[in-house]
Amino acid sequence: MKALIINCTLKPSPQFSNTGALAQKAERQLRENGITAEIIRLVDYNIKPGTEADMGNGDEWPAILDKLKAANIFIIATPVWMGHLASTAQHVIERLDSIFHDEQFADKETGQYITYNKVAGCLITGNEDGAHSCAAQVLWAMQELGFTIPPNVNAYWVGMAGGEQYFYTYYTMRWMIANLTYFAKLLKDNPITSNLKKLKEMAEKERD
Amino acid sequence: MKALIINCTLKPSPQFSNTGALAQKAERQLRENGITAEIIRLVDYNIKPGTEADMGNGDEWPAILDKLKAANIFIIATPVWMGHLASTAQHVIERLDSIFHDEQFADKETGQYITYNKVAGCLITGNEDGAHSCAAQVLWAMQELGFTIPPNVNAYWVGMAGGEQYFYTYYTMRWMIANLTYFAKLLKDNPITSNLKKLKEMAEKERD
Amino acid sequence: MKALIINCTLKPSPQFSNTGALAQKAERQLRENGITAEIIRLVDYNIKPGTEADMGNGDEWPAILDKLKAANIFIIATPVWMGHLASTAQHVIERLDSIFHDEQFADKETGQYITYNKVAGCLITGNEDGAHSCAAQVLWAMQELGFTIPPNVNAYWVGMAGGEQYFYTYYTMRWMIANLTYFAKLLKDNPITSNLKKLKEMAEKERD
Amino acid sequence: MKALIINCTLKPSPQFSNTGALAQKAERQLRENGITAEIIRLVDYNIKPGTEADMGNGDEWPAILDKLKAANIFIIATPVWMGHLASTAQHVIERLDSIFHDEQFADKETGQYITYNKVAGCLITGNEDGAHSCAAQVLWAMQELGFTIPPNVNAYWVGMAGGEQYFYTYYTMRWMIANLTYFAKLLKDNPITSNLKKLKEMAEKERD
Repeated sequence: MKALIINCTLKPSPQFSNTGALAQKAERQLRENGITAEIIRLVDYNIKPGTEADMGNGDEWPAILDKLKAANIFIIATPVWMGHLASTAQHVIERLDSIFHDEQFADKETGQYITYNKVAGCLITGNEDGAHSCAAQVLWAMQELGFTIPPNVNAYWVGMAGGEQYFYTYYTMRWMIANLTYFAKLLKDNPITSNLKKLKEMAEKERD
Repeated sequence: MKALIINCTLKPSPQFSNTGALAQKAERQLRENGITAEIIRLVDYNIKPGTEADMGNGDEWPAILDKLKAANIFIIATPVWMGHLASTAQHVIERLDSIFHDEQFADKETGQYITYNKVAGCLITGNEDGAHSCAAQVLWAMQELGFTIPPNVNAYWVGMAGGEQYFYTYYTMRWMIANLTYFAKLLKDNPITSNLKKLKEMAEKERD
Repeated sequence: MKALIINCTLKPSPQFSNTGALAQKAERQLRENGITAEIIRLVDYNIKPGTEADMGNGDEWPAILDKLKAANIFIIATPVWMGHLASTAQHVIERLDSIFHDEQFADKETGQYITYNKVAGCLITGNEDGAHSCAAQVLWAMQELGFTIPPNVNAYWVGMAGGEQYFYTYYTMRWMIANLTYFAKLLKDNPITSNLKKLKEMAEKERD
Repeated sequence: MKALIINCTLKPSPQFSNTGALAQKAERQLRENGITAEIIRLVDYNIKPGTEADMGNGDEWPAILDKLKAANIFIIATPVWMGHLASTAQHVIERLDSIFHDEQFADKETGQYITYNKVAGCLITGNEDGAHSCAAQVLWAMQELGFTIPPNVNAYWVGMAGGEQYFYTYYTMRWMIANLTYFAKLLKDNPITSNLKKLKEMAEKERD
């Protein structure tokens, strides 16, 4: 079982990233659950703007997409800027848009996207406000892209660290990692059976 | 297996409700899958403002909450107003807030909310724009409240009905109902094992 | 010069409302600026669901709408619930929707809504997160409805009161009240000249 | 009088950009009103990630910031991706964050940001849904950064062009340009008088 965490901090390596610190904590807990997690810091790569799987010209997104294909668990870790998810996190979502329109990402038999049977969650950091709004956008997009969203799979660290806030972040992260792990295993053993192609054909008949 | 659909139209019965029409379509598909669905039109009930399970004074929310407890699948069907989910849908979310702070809704052993092992989706109607934003808010809140969000569990009908738009609504609804059904059965047979209480205790130790 | 503040707390009078406390602070500062402000606690009134100016059956919205017509400054004060503006605040926005489709609210000559030359702002309270998202929804809707949004016209009080957070709320409220006052006077002396009807006719010709 | 429009399309020049086409239409209308508008296509520039005014290493943002300083009207034109404003538009917002924390952007006497007395609006394109949500995020952020938001300053073009939708886009754009022009002139002749520094000092005393 594998997990991919994309750290969407705006700061390139080797600068310290709060979002990265939260991602590392998640990585340790995943490892305790027997899951190997890789953390990618997006700004360290040359990711082209666009909505295709490969935008060419040295685009380094395809290699990250390969890691996503191999993963059971996908986590977007993003800072909040102006009440909103970071441009880098939105960049990831845009690059995943190809899953909708590129045939290579849909099963020929069932029409299921490659994301079916994978689970997603998110981690958020910020200096004050916006965690819920960011989580809503990330998790909705993941659901739309074909990921399953288990209960309580967002943890955030907003404002000053320490004290009560610290505790809240820590136990919600433990809930998140436990539920992501449970569902990743559940879907590995029980792949989703919905045949999206046939269902679409049934809907086609309703048009008449 | 049971489903509860809350129709959050602003129009009381017996007025025609577009959101209700979409809900009825979902109800028929659930029935085809062997699931009994009940549709509640919220504005027909006396639902008090507040965030407790029972606000007293003739509050009719507790009876709806009982139906939710008995359901495996929960669907919020809402119109969009000014790019936003209807006040009635937000009212439902506020009334569910008691799940977080009222001990009767958490399992004594595991701390799991009563929503664990239930799945949620949403239906949206509107005259032009805002479906994605509404879906994001509804599904994020459901996830936060303990529901599982299967892939592709929102369908909407925005703008003029008919033609291509019609088809899009119809096949996304079929995907939604198929995935909600699959996950409701999966979780019935394989209840989530995460012990939220123990995980919280583990996090408590990290504070030191 | 007059101001109308709608307190969208979920708690009926005479319960203590944090949102009401923030509204009262704004009211005092407006008075210092020579502006008479009235605070309405929405849940104390019988406001029907719907999007018309008068929903009948004892609907008490028309009286509030009259106060809005007489006001130069309009402030929505709302708590945050589940990262979202309260159902009561969304209820206010829905009831204002009639401004778009009811001819009585548009000037016969210019097509300007009755909200033109009025300014709007918002106040937000909550126990943790969501102020920016709520402010974005409220201010966008107000702008769409024809209000002018001066710079820095949202103040919020999220999480524990006291200390730095307290200070932040206080000075942003002072900026808000100063800017609302400045613009209300400016627009009273310099009413907007845009003729929306003629501009619409010009656009009509572009269709060909 | 000058306007700056940033086209946040994901497509580099010379590819055709729908957002660019809408921006050009706005530019023509601004010119008819005697305002010189420049359109910048963001992806054609080397804009570094970050929240400082100048991120170094060949960062081309400072030159764009100079254009913004000289402009009376600022328009963000963005496509919608996954119900959300483009990563490029969020990138612009992040780069403007320096206005909050870099002293060079605040007037020494009044504390007013350089954006005071400037007005902002937005243009949005997309293949189906999300215009309102994007407009809310953009306009809220602009208001927070110190811009004034006149009434009805967002126009969008979502889904298929032509017919009624086309007309809606065209007349809302005319309203937008007329109101941006009116307010830009109004603020040029009547600069905002609020002394943010003094107001902050008054709030400081309230802490005790």
